[in-house]
Amino acid sequence: MNSSLERYLKTRSAWAERGLRRLLRTRTPQPISFLGPVPETLRRSMGYSLMAGGKRLRPILVMAAAEACGLPPRRTLKTACALEMIHTYSLIHDDLPAMDDDDLRRGKPTNHKVFGEAVAILAGDGLLTWAFELAAENALELGLDGRHAAELVRTVAAGSGVRGMVAGQAVDLQSEGRGRRLSRDKAKARKLLEDIHTHKTAALLTASLDAGAVLAQASPARRRALQRYGRAIGLSFQIVDDVLDRVGDKGKLGKKGSDLANDKLTYPSLYGIEGSRAMAARLTADAHRALAPFGVQAAPLHGLADYVLSRDR
Amino acid sequence: MNSSLERYLKTRSAWAERGLRRLLRTRTPQPISFLGPVPETLRRSMGYSLMAGGKRLRPILVMAAAEACGLPPRRTLKTACALEMIHTYSLIHDDLPAMDDDDLRRGKPTNHKVFGEAVAILAGDGLLTWAFELAAENALELGLDGRHAAELVRTVAAGSGVRGMVAGQAVDLQSEGRGRRLSRDKAKARKLLEDIHTHKTAALLTASLDAGAVLAQASPARRRALQRYGRAIGLSFQIVDDVLDRVGDKGKLGKKGSDLANDKLTYPSLYGIEGSRAMAARLTADAHRALAPFGVQAAPLHGLADYVLSRDR
Repeated sequence: MNSSLERYLKTRSAWAERGLRRLLRTRTPQPISFLGPVPETLRRSMGYSLMAGGKRLRPILVMAAAEACGLPPRRTLKTACALEMIHTYSLIHDDLPAMDDDDLRRGKPTNHKVFGEAVAILAGDGLLTWAFELAAENALELGLDGRHAAELVRTVAAGSGVRGMVAGQAVDLQSEGRGRRLSRDKAKARKLLEDIHTHKTAALLTASLDAGAVLAQASPARRRALQRYGRAIGLSFQIVDDVLDRVGDKGKLGKKGSDLANDKLTYPSLYGIEGSRAMAARLTADAHRALAPFGVQAAPLHGLADYVLSRDR
Repeated sequence: MNSSLERYLKTRSAWAERGLRRLLRTRTPQPISFLGPVPETLRRSMGYSLMAGGKRLRPILVMAAAEACGLPPRRTLKTACALEMIHTYSLIHDDLPAMDDDDLRRGKPTNHKVFGEAVAILAGDGLLTWAFELAAENALELGLDGRHAAELVRTVAAGSGVRGMVAGQAVDLQSEGRGRRLSRDKAKARKLLEDIHTHKTAALLTASLDAGAVLAQASPARRRALQRYGRAIGLSFQIVDDVLDRVGDKGKLGKKGSDLANDKLTYPSLYGIEGSRAMAARLTADAHRALAPFGVQAAPLHGLADYVLSRDR
């Protein structure tokens, strides 16, 4: 990673973390007057997972897309934090015993291991709900008109919902532990794999970009361009993940188990390691091409596409 | 229940059910172009719980509040359905083994008993997310300005989120199975009980009313009046629930177990049956008083307050 991108990512993720920390502390006025503060257990449980590190990729994408469309990135901070909350809620629910049943996440005990399953479920529900509140507050702060305010909420909901991320998780569930069996029909398996990750990963990354674009009141053409970019880096992100699972350093990844042991349908299993790497490179090239309308303001997005491809954790 | 209210509730719940059925079938255009349809398992799981009956109280409140503020109720249908989706998601997650561990809901197997825990968790997450998409679409349809569009999303999120319904569930969890122990300090127990139900029940009913009011672009004074009404009927609703659990017909309620057996903190345990009934009646009187600014257009809301008090299931 070149040092200017490194600085950029560091600054932006620090902004996102400061934003999240502040949101966890403060008590904003509520539209319903008789509601009390956030109960302490819930606040600690949400905070535990929100502040457990991570690349803060989704907030960075919100800010970088807004910047590419001419809006100062700081003005999107609440939406940026909202997208990180949605990402975090999905991790908390994903780790539950009924889902992936993971004890560790980024080398630390998962939320339900610390707070119990019931609180973990509620913390996830709470983060998801909070995210929409923040998006709406951000629309108010920027004085968006009704169309843009509604579109902001719509795109965040679409990317994270039953036709977006949640759809991807549902389809992924059905394929779980059936990797070798499904791979017998290679064409079908490849389609299924793309379907899963277009929704499970790319949809939320794209919603982050699109939210930034809507906040900046970008043109439909620019929104389409950013969506194409989002789909490309989303798939590339997942391919790299699958490859790292095969050849990466488990210590760096903070993971237990492996896709092979879990009989998962993965890019390396369907395309081989080299085939997967070539595919990720092609997607990255497409991501760069999608950014053509933006010029120099999209430099961070170009850098991010390369970073997603070349990361080692 | 008088026959004109009965007709009113029947019509309105039929509207809500038709709306929900249509939403489950149709595929609306999405802001993110590459997303596919809702996966079939997810659609069936969400549809199973959404169409499992129920009073449709929250959609009715959305429509009745809008009507009281001068907006034709049909124009709030998407938000009305959104509030029913939030209610349904909360039931699905509440019934999970890690939460209340219920096998039956309204006399039918609970969602996770039919579709498995993982799908039930995702169906809940999906319904919650979908709700915000619908509220945003409703704001677009009505051509709301940015302030009202954002306020709509904010109030729905506030009522259902970490300072609203989810807060109530979290506090309720902590008190679970400790009813007799907590009751030793009666003043503290009474405060805790009010705190739980103000959030667990009243907050979402109030968000329903407030959403209707915001869609109708009601004045702050009218919104405050409806919030006072919502808090009063919400608590009265819960008190009646607790009383029915003690003296009601289990067949009609479609419940298994009882609050007593589960050592729950309830109104009858802290105020006695008669004391609880008197309290619910006082709250109902307050609900009627809160409606003073509205005149005849609030007739259904007056009727609903009485219905909540006198229902037998």
